[in-house]
Amino acid sequence: MQYFTDTDMGLDLSLVNLAVESAFSDHGKGLVLMPPKVYVTLPEGDFRTMPAYLPSLSIAGVKIVNVHPGNPQKGLPTVMALTVILDISTGEPVAVINATRLTDMRTGAAGAIAAKYLSSKKEITLGVVGTGRQAEAQVAAISRELKIRDIKVWGCNPEHVRKFADRFMEYPCSSGSLERVCDCDLLVTTTPSRSPLVQAEWIHEGTHINAIGADAPGKEELDPALLKRAQVFVDDPAQAVHSGEINVPISQGIFRKSDIAGTLGEVVIGRKKRERKEGITIFDSTGLAIQDLAIAHIAMQQGKKIDLPFP
Amino acid sequence: MQYFTDTDMGLDLSLVNLAVESAFSDHGKGLVLMPPKVYVTLPEGDFRTMPAYLPSLSIAGVKIVNVHPGNPQKGLPTVMALTVILDISTGEPVAVINATRLTDMRTGAAGAIAAKYLSSKKEITLGVVGTGRQAEAQVAAISRELKIRDIKVWGCNPEHVRKFADRFMEYPCSSGSLERVCDCDLLVTTTPSRSPLVQAEWIHEGTHINAIGADAPGKEELDPALLKRAQVFVDDPAQAVHSGEINVPISQGIFRKSDIAGTLGEVVIGRKKRERKEGITIFDSTGLAIQDLAIAHIAMQQGKKIDLPFP
Repeated sequence: MQYFTDTDMGLDLSLVNLAVESAFSDHGKGLVLMPPKVYVTLPEGDFRTMPAYLPSLSIAGVKIVNVHPGNPQKGLPTVMALTVILDISTGEPVAVINATRLTDMRTGAAGAIAAKYLSSKKEITLGVVGTGRQAEAQVAAISRELKIRDIKVWGCNPEHVRKFADRFMEYPCSSGSLERVCDCDLLVTTTPSRSPLVQAEWIHEGTHINAIGADAPGKEELDPALLKRAQVFVDDPAQAVHSGEINVPISQGIFRKSDIAGTLGEVVIGRKKRERKEGITIFDSTGLAIQDLAIAHIAMQQGKKIDLPFP
Repeated sequence: MQYFTDTDMGLDLSLVNLAVESAFSDHGKGLVLMPPKVYVTLPEGDFRTMPAYLPSLSIAGVKIVNVHPGNPQKGLPTVMALTVILDISTGEPVAVINATRLTDMRTGAAGAIAAKYLSSKKEITLGVVGTGRQAEAQVAAISRELKIRDIKVWGCNPEHVRKFADRFMEYPCSSGSLERVCDCDLLVTTTPSRSPLVQAEWIHEGTHINAIGADAPGKEELDPALLKRAQVFVDDPAQAVHSGEINVPISQGIFRKSDIAGTLGEVVIGRKKRERKEGITIFDSTGLAIQDLAIAHIAMQQGKKIDLPFP
């Protein structure tokens, strides 16, 4: 068994996007085994357990990931993750992977693949709501699939907004009101909000939105009226209904499971698509265990590792 | 983060039984968070993911465990396990534990606690069906709670039966037909059978049975007629219905969820009990994630460990 200590260095984001796209393609074709993630509540946060088997890469395993909003005050990341990989022939654990940074990257990659297939334009003004690790990961991954002309960013903390702009100095980058940032071609929302931030009337026709922030029951970032106007794609229907952007509108009876336009996997294999150039599309991302397996597969070929005795 | 390499050495089985009993007590009182385990099928077996939070020990984590019946031919155990422990305040992974042997021991401990509370006698003739690791673990753990007068063992492979008897030379130990072995005070069944081995007419009044082997859909060791005659206790109703001894009879409509007499946790806290000395009781064990946390808590105080960098 090997422990992979730090696997963010030097991973090629285009390769990561490709691997995650391939995993979504398998998902669209029904070629993966992946029960919905399981949540356990802790006193100051929660942790999620995400098992899956991805036959096309002969890889199986489980990601364990927490969300603790108070961690930054303790000098720790809000989200930390560990992935355990099993040999598919014997079930023996063969790798334990520090997957904190990989989690950011594979979520960024899903956003990039959604943008690649659903954006109505190949050259975009990118609106970013939130300034944390996932906001950065989305921009980095999307930049591999679309040409970013300029970035508009909104965040609560002016210092964080400045740092975000510094991180992406290669693009014209401006901050502004949330309404102004929403006036873009591709909007990415990455906040932990529990009430809608983005109003329906701020979004113009032809926009694609990656709704990333909502990943637990009670979280939502978008005005439900926007969902009703848009084609809403999800990564996994069961997870999206339970904990994605649509979870609150569904629990309130405003949105129905049958209103989902399709999965990203179905989009990747061409079974579903953006219907009209001037329509609004939304990708509701909750994060799939197969994304974690796809990036683990790359990380295990490149990462620094320590040998551990097992069994 | 620390990796605990090998935690079977020197654990005091009486302490393990006590810790597991305490976990069942918490379970009976509704003081644990534990979703049902999740199964993923692999080409030659499966793996199960078992998350939980046990507030009384301030411990949370996930056990990942496989079952691959063909492994012994490859020189590997059928069952191997790894447990990841998280800090409950921050969600940070703090330990990875080689839990293969611990899995045997905590399952043995559950059987011992069931025997302690449900056996109609304190001095017993112990019948053992199967000769593998779990058969040994049951005898070792039960010996801490009841006085074993003698052991009767049945197995398919005479060589394994001989080895089993050698392992427990401190007791008078005899082998015999399955029917003869079933003539005992406390019967433990530990096979991977997919059809009933133990016939109802072989079991006399007053017997307690630990039904350990059935841990996946389709597995069963006991004649369903025996279930109808007995008080059937389970570790967890949802898991038992899905994958315990009762799963096949329930799927065939022979047994109903409402026929369950109670949980082992309810027995430990005194809410449920053996009704009649001359009745038959059955404990249907599927294995709970809180058992794994309870034994991990002990192992982390005693086991050999390696420091690993995280995050």
